[in-house]
Amino acid sequence: MIDLDKGRIQDLFDFQIAVDAVRAAYIAYARGSVQTPPVTYLGFPGANGDCHIKSGHIAGDDAFVIKVATGFYNNPSKGLPSSNGMNLVFSAETGAPLALLRDEGWLTDIRTGIGGALATQALAVEGVDHVLIVGTGLQARHQARCLQHLIPDRRLSFSLWGRSSEQAEIAARELQGAGLRARIVEDLAEACRDNQAIVTTTSAQSPLIDSDWVPPGVHITAIGADCPGKQELDVELIARAGLLVCDSPEQALDHGEFQTLARSGRLNAAGVVTLGDVLSRDHPGRHAGDQITIADLTGLAAQDIAVSQSILKGVAA
Amino acid sequence: MIDLDKGRIQDLFDFQIAVDAVRAAYIAYARGSVQTPPVTYLGFPGANGDCHIKSGHIAGDDAFVIKVATGFYNNPSKGLPSSNGMNLVFSAETGAPLALLRDEGWLTDIRTGIGGALATQALAVEGVDHVLIVGTGLQARHQARCLQHLIPDRRLSFSLWGRSSEQAEIAARELQGAGLRARIVEDLAEACRDNQAIVTTTSAQSPLIDSDWVPPGVHITAIGADCPGKQELDVELIARAGLLVCDSPEQALDHGEFQTLARSGRLNAAGVVTLGDVLSRDHPGRHAGDQITIADLTGLAAQDIAVSQSILKGVAA
Repeated sequence: MIDLDKGRIQDLFDFQIAVDAVRAAYIAYARGSVQTPPVTYLGFPGANGDCHIKSGHIAGDDAFVIKVATGFYNNPSKGLPSSNGMNLVFSAETGAPLALLRDEGWLTDIRTGIGGALATQALAVEGVDHVLIVGTGLQARHQARCLQHLIPDRRLSFSLWGRSSEQAEIAARELQGAGLRARIVEDLAEACRDNQAIVTTTSAQSPLIDSDWVPPGVHITAIGADCPGKQELDVELIARAGLLVCDSPEQALDHGEFQTLARSGRLNAAGVVTLGDVLSRDHPGRHAGDQITIADLTGLAAQDIAVSQSILKGVAA
Repeated sequence: MIDLDKGRIQDLFDFQIAVDAVRAAYIAYARGSVQTPPVTYLGFPGANGDCHIKSGHIAGDDAFVIKVATGFYNNPSKGLPSSNGMNLVFSAETGAPLALLRDEGWLTDIRTGIGGALATQALAVEGVDHVLIVGTGLQARHQARCLQHLIPDRRLSFSLWGRSSEQAEIAARELQGAGLRARIVEDLAEACRDNQAIVTTTSAQSPLIDSDWVPPGVHITAIGADCPGKQELDVELIARAGLLVCDSPEQALDHGEFQTLARSGRLNAAGVVTLGDVLSRDHPGRHAGDQITIADLTGLAAQDIAVSQSILKGVAA
């Protein structure tokens, strides 16, 4: 069995191979060729922690993947990261364990970054070059870096907004250090008007972005809401959008950004398009420059399979 | 992270520590202090394989366990065992991975053997010394060895019955080699009359044991039936029994030995007792020497937690 720690996984990571794998995984998912059992949840309220187990198999793949992701939110007070986890790869032909990827959650961060960037690239107006990132955490930075990676032929201009301008400053400096054009902004309403695409990456439980702030033509990728009660966007903004896209309709309507509108009975599965169908062009995506488009991503096991397989391609090479 | 392969796990295994842990796990489960999410299932029909993921946490334990078990039934034609798998142990305080037990399914076999032996010991008539084992596979042998381990003060007399008397001969010789008193029997009906306890370990899909063959006072531990369609005992034998015990009522009535009687509407959860309640003496168990008792075991994640923890105690020691 191959056993890789986080450092080795990062060494083996190849952005283009991973992007191609994640894109193919979204398309396979949309076409119904990914076997994805329900997510397993374990809760540890005494330690303010939880564990999610995702698993899946893409039809035709010679391997299947089980991902264990833990979040223990008192860890920072002990000097430990909140997130941890691993991806396990098994043969879909013999059931034998093939690889243990002890990524400590890094592959999840990366596949989430790639997924968001693919959605933003696919749905933003042509020639998009001004992008607002809302939030200043790890995922904010992954979204910016992955998007710039996907659009190598022009230098994007990133505006960063966070509740703490100190944290925003740190994030901006990190992105600048990686060669990205990044600056912090203080006025979120103004920034929503000044950018063609917005990527939200916060754990907000009430809307940060007002519908009135968002002009026609803007695309929004909403990453933050991934469980009941989380919400980053004004529900009227979602109702007003011309195109609603998500990775998984079941998840988005149940516990993603679209949950509030769905719960009020104003949105159902017929009102959303699956990202894989946009990436495969089975759905045309944005149809006009003045359309507001929103992608709500909650994460698929298919992405975990894809990034894990992309790392193993690096081992085989 | 501790990483142990099957050989090292077998070296560290201590029967008494494991028995104590499994007994405590059954009791914790019966008392509602085990968190057990639904079992995850992945199917690979093209390769005649499947994967089950069980997970759980016993309240108060400092660790939780995820078990991956694969069964790929074409493997023997490739010279590989059908079963494989591993138990993963994580901190319930920080979410960090603590141990990887690459047991290839051995811990599952052992915890199943211990579970069956605990049930047989708890429910058979006092002084039981004649035990019939039905089936000749790995689990048949585990059941015999674990039961003899649990009752060290007297030498049990095991009768083995299998469809293939050749396989029965091999199993008997193996048990004899391990110091057990074992012989094969040809007539199953006669053997049911001649023994005080019966342990069934086959994958039968229609009853092997007729109600008429089983005299009063016999205890039966039914291990084989663990999915819809499997059945080892005449449904009238179950209906006739004075005491029905199971590890998990939900599982037993849905896909264990009790499924057929439950499906016909003649048995529900009120008609069964949980094994943990018998082991803790919250339920008195057998109340008369002429009572027929049946234990239907389908396997609990709590057992996986228990044996995994017992191995880690060996590492710490």
